[in-house]
Amino acid sequence: MDASTPTFLARGNGRTLSEQLAQRFADHIGQRVLPPGARLPSVRDCAQRHRVSPATVVGAYDLLQARGLVEARPQRGFFVREASVPAPAMPARRALAPGAPVDATALIRGMFNSASALPSPGVGTLPESWLDAALLQRALRHASGPGAAASWLGYGNPAGDESLRQALTRRLADLGVPTHAEQIVTTIGATHGLDLVSRTLLQPGDAVLVDEPGWAVEFARLARLGVHILPVPRGPLGPDLAVMTALCKAHRPRMYATVSVLHNPTGASLTAAAAHQVLRLAETHDFTIVEDDSYAWFAPPHALRLSSLDGLRRTVLVSGFSKILTPQWRVGFVAAAPALAERIVDTKLLSTLTSPAPLEQAIAWCLDKGQLRRHAERIVSQLDAARSRAQRLAEDAGCRFASQPQGLFGWVDTGVDTDRLAAAMHDEGWLLAPGSLFHAGRRPGTLMRINFATTQDARFWRRFVAVAGYI
Amino acid sequence: MDASTPTFLARGNGRTLSEQLAQRFADHIGQRVLPPGARLPSVRDCAQRHRVSPATVVGAYDLLQARGLVEARPQRGFFVREASVPAPAMPARRALAPGAPVDATALIRGMFNSASALPSPGVGTLPESWLDAALLQRALRHASGPGAAASWLGYGNPAGDESLRQALTRRLADLGVPTHAEQIVTTIGATHGLDLVSRTLLQPGDAVLVDEPGWAVEFARLARLGVHILPVPRGPLGPDLAVMTALCKAHRPRMYATVSVLHNPTGASLTAAAAHQVLRLAETHDFTIVEDDSYAWFAPPHALRLSSLDGLRRTVLVSGFSKILTPQWRVGFVAAAPALAERIVDTKLLSTLTSPAPLEQAIAWCLDKGQLRRHAERIVSQLDAARSRAQRLAEDAGCRFASQPQGLFGWVDTGVDTDRLAAAMHDEGWLLAPGSLFHAGRRPGTLMRINFATTQDARFWRRFVAVAGYI
Repeated sequence: MDASTPTFLARGNGRTLSEQLAQRFADHIGQRVLPPGARLPSVRDCAQRHRVSPATVVGAYDLLQARGLVEARPQRGFFVREASVPAPAMPARRALAPGAPVDATALIRGMFNSASALPSPGVGTLPESWLDAALLQRALRHASGPGAAASWLGYGNPAGDESLRQALTRRLADLGVPTHAEQIVTTIGATHGLDLVSRTLLQPGDAVLVDEPGWAVEFARLARLGVHILPVPRGPLGPDLAVMTALCKAHRPRMYATVSVLHNPTGASLTAAAAHQVLRLAETHDFTIVEDDSYAWFAPPHALRLSSLDGLRRTVLVSGFSKILTPQWRVGFVAAAPALAERIVDTKLLSTLTSPAPLEQAIAWCLDKGQLRRHAERIVSQLDAARSRAQRLAEDAGCRFASQPQGLFGWVDTGVDTDRLAAAMHDEGWLLAPGSLFHAGRRPGTLMRINFATTQDARFWRRFVAVAGYI
Repeated sequence: MDASTPTFLARGNGRTLSEQLAQRFADHIGQRVLPPGARLPSVRDCAQRHRVSPATVVGAYDLLQARGLVEARPQRGFFVREASVPAPAMPARRALAPGAPVDATALIRGMFNSASALPSPGVGTLPESWLDAALLQRALRHASGPGAAASWLGYGNPAGDESLRQALTRRLADLGVPTHAEQIVTTIGATHGLDLVSRTLLQPGDAVLVDEPGWAVEFARLARLGVHILPVPRGPLGPDLAVMTALCKAHRPRMYATVSVLHNPTGASLTAAAAHQVLRLAETHDFTIVEDDSYAWFAPPHALRLSSLDGLRRTVLVSGFSKILTPQWRVGFVAAAPALAERIVDTKLLSTLTSPAPLEQAIAWCLDKGQLRRHAERIVSQLDAARSRAQRLAEDAGCRFASQPQGLFGWVDTGVDTDRLAAAMHDEGWLLAPGSLFHAGRRPGTLMRINFATTQDARFWRRFVAVAGYI
């Protein structure tokens, strides 16, 4: 056994190194880490990276070709075949922005499929070790007493569990967004909230403003609805108002999807002046603002929201508990003007009918008992420490922060092509989020998003420096 | 206090009878029990029904008019104003079949909003008293042990909880539908399953075959997706194959949404011969069959499914646990061919990201421990008894069964206009499901769906006979 062989290629386990290497690539292709059309590394690069002979790599690529997963293109190398991932039965019929959903799916599937024991600098959530399983267990037990269980037997209120909606009005009042419970519709996580709002407001062909950089899954969702996506450059103070104004005049958008507080991926928050201008534009050009407030629990209480300035007239606030409590309970909500909230309930009835009462009741308990606030305070101070450390490590590794480090995400300029960096690092078990994922048109570049909670590992930054040196 | 005054109008409570009556109508309008455009009863009818003077009714209608909820049309009476329910901000933009979604919403909102203590003959679920809160509580406690809680902290598998998917393969094998866990995607109830499949397979403008009569919410969902709905008459043996063939030739449908076993609303199940013909049509005309198996737990084990004949090649099976365990947990699933299951996971990622692990784990426990089977056996024998009793009461009341009584629903011919019947009975606190709700074009008629579990009350049938006599 050669000690220098990376652990995933093991001599003497009954399978040749070529077979093992081929399987590794096949896994990546199946998980869409290597999407259709992606080029495999050159034989020389691959041999060097995996410390095997070029003949081993050639053998692996032959196996992949025989399995129909890749194809050789003369003079250019090996490419993942279009049909090697489960193909849409009617590809021409899907209203997708070219490339976007596969990429979004690749990233999120990567998050789910990570077989690596290493922290994932590219994920969008806190590490499991930061979360509080005991709190969740306690909350669910409180919410499954005999009285609660009896309440599960009917359909409940399609707008959501009453105790949670009441607790959310108190929480939103703390954030400067006064509401009545009638304005709140619970959802299956913030993702579902954004989906319901989009399906309520939009028709195929409508124009929608989005922040760029922005969250790939949001782009993919909008593309799937057949709408026309209008990216607005997002700077440290807010969206580029000149571009936004021009787009409004040219395309008459119906909606603007944005993250005001701790924007994903830049971590920047909207200034009061920019917020005011955005609202004026919305009024002049008659569009609805959908404010994704998923990172609310990481932000200081005084952070400014469009919903707060506007009083939920033209704005809709969407948030949830996946970032702060657990991504697997899938509890989120939408707060909107009363008439719009009613229409969102109609869409919810056609989408999921209602939403699971036990988990909503458990979250209401966490909110009402102050458990969530205390948990969030612990997380915020832990995140502050992580951010300091990760920032130092990133800067020592030669990265420059494209916006001031805040919240969960850092937006860093690595100086190298981050698509290539991500591909190379993935082979070593590190999942990165290259900047291209945050562009509606998947523009390659040198930026990437890091999760401060998962980039405190000096090993990662050592490998980063080494890989950035040779790609 | 006049003893003959119905309980909801009470003299001497500080509000005039006109005010109380107006409020009663306002509630109905708000809940869309009286949809926009609906005509209010004549002053004389209303006075007679509520045992008040015509002047009281005139006063009530004046109040409703002053509140902008109704409008008088000369020579015709009072009508609910179009703008009196939360109006779509852009009505011309919504791709809705005329009338369909409002009606579906009215029925399901009626289910949720029922303030009446009376059983609801029109609901689609079992009465709460039949369900087993203690079982749910036990299951959720089993699923919230420390080990399980730790598993909630990550995102989990986007296809759904592994233990549930494994349990479902065993359940489906019992139904004659062998699957691998990879073919199963968990959803937020069967409703979400149908929504995900439709969004995966369809584009606006596509043609879709549906059973008529069929489930109003399914029509509304499809209408909302902007597809072209092609109703196929559903008889006691299955769909009308001549009509179906003609529609296939004329419109090239992409999908057929159907309930093979214990069809809603007729209760009929597909014969083997019809199933074979439907599959041949699907093959010839290249469409996918989406088989809603929501009533599976009420059916005998040998009931035939299209999915079973076809082996999930052209068919997709959708089901859930809302009918048998509880509607508020919202756990359902889709079983499909492996490549299509992958595409459905992609749609799920954009819709709700994942689905709530604790409830899926609790359902898996119910399945694995045989708890669900035993519970279902109890429910089936209880339902058998209820059906016998309800059938006798219905026939004694002059109803004729349009198809043989089976499962949860009876499809009865009342001999009177069931839209008018439902409106009149609703005033007395009985929620009915008139036949027009099960027609894509909302065709009025004399049929209605009854729920056998909630029509055993002789009081209902006495009022039915009385009201049917005067409308």
